[in-house]
Amino acid sequence: MKFVLASASPARREVLRSAGIDPIVRVSDVDEDAIAAALPEGTAPDVVVVELARAKAAAVAATIPELAADCVVVGCDSMLLVDGELQGKPHTAEVARARWGEMAGRSADLVTGHCVLRLQDGRITAEAIDCSSTTVHFAKPEPDELDAYIATGEPLQVAGAFTLDGLGGWFVDRIDGDPSSVIGIGLPLLRRLLGDVGVAVTQLWGHPAG
Amino acid sequence: MKFVLASASPARREVLRSAGIDPIVRVSDVDEDAIAAALPEGTAPDVVVVELARAKAAAVAATIPELAADCVVVGCDSMLLVDGELQGKPHTAEVARARWGEMAGRSADLVTGHCVLRLQDGRITAEAIDCSSTTVHFAKPEPDELDAYIATGEPLQVAGAFTLDGLGGWFVDRIDGDPSSVIGIGLPLLRRLLGDVGVAVTQLWGHPAG
Repeated sequence: MKFVLASASPARREVLRSAGIDPIVRVSDVDEDAIAAALPEGTAPDVVVVELARAKAAAVAATIPELAADCVVVGCDSMLLVDGELQGKPHTAEVARARWGEMAGRSADLVTGHCVLRLQDGRITAEAIDCSSTTVHFAKPEPDELDAYIATGEPLQVAGAFTLDGLGGWFVDRIDGDPSSVIGIGLPLLRRLLGDVGVAVTQLWGHPAG
Repeated sequence: MKFVLASASPARREVLRSAGIDPIVRVSDVDEDAIAAALPEGTAPDVVVVELARAKAAAVAATIPELAADCVVVGCDSMLLVDGELQGKPHTAEVARARWGEMAGRSADLVTGHCVLRLQDGRITAEAIDCSSTTVHFAKPEPDELDAYIATGEPLQVAGAFTLDGLGGWFVDRIDGDPSSVIGIGLPLLRRLLGDVGVAVTQLWGHPAG
């Protein structure tokens, strides 16, 4: 039983490794913006992230015939929902600073879509999808703390302009929900989705990648 | 400015490293059971863990004259409060199994006491203490999942018989509070306590141990 993570995110990989799964990493080249833009206007945020997760998993599943005797492929997509708007990676320091101007001292919902595909004998035999939503309560960094944080570059390349498992952890006072889903892959939800496709998570523990 | 972690916990060290601080680790040899037993009967749980954290930090502070030109020493102690009773490490598979029999499908409070001592010119110039409490909602592992989890040995040596940052993460559905405090050292609280002794956390980022 192989476990394939359809994501380039080192944070997701590290969550899995800490939890006993050393995934094979295969990165899809799906155009996330195009997929999101093709959804009907007003599509609910949890549907958007699940559709993006599904697109990533499906794209990777189509490229791994050599692993497909029996494997699961997992795709995920995370965004921060602030005042009803989905926010991805800020990319620039200016956008990151503006985001923190909105977030500081307030809460927002981190939504992570999950898609688990099971492949047997080269074809998809089961699919399980769901979204995990967690409320994140942000601290109010002092101006010089925010300057220092943005100067590290960390918030520029992550959904919602913060991490929970990096320097951003200093500036998250509390969460209501699953911390692994905030990092990008929710362990309790993934355990349930794996069960839905007939795989016990304990089967996957301690199996090195490849 | 040196940062000394008065704890042998690899999980605490890893939280700090992920958050930009590579601590000097010095382990105290305080007798935790004796300290807890010496407290008045009925001492509140948050006071118990803070007193244990303080004892660890103070014991280490007394042994590091070579670092004491300007440094902070941080002690922590974590316990799980289940039905009003503080629970430490189960140590044996039998106790771990019994704990999970009580915890599965329910919630409990993980309390972590923190003590930050600032040392300047060889003496303690400031102290800040506080406790972080987080409610943890446990899943109900299937019997064979629980067998597999206990067989790994992980839950035996951790407070409350679970981890959030290891295999136990599969069996925690959600938390209400700070995930780093559940792992054993609460970043947002530590940021505040450092401020109370006159240290900005950003000063400590990226400084290698030693």
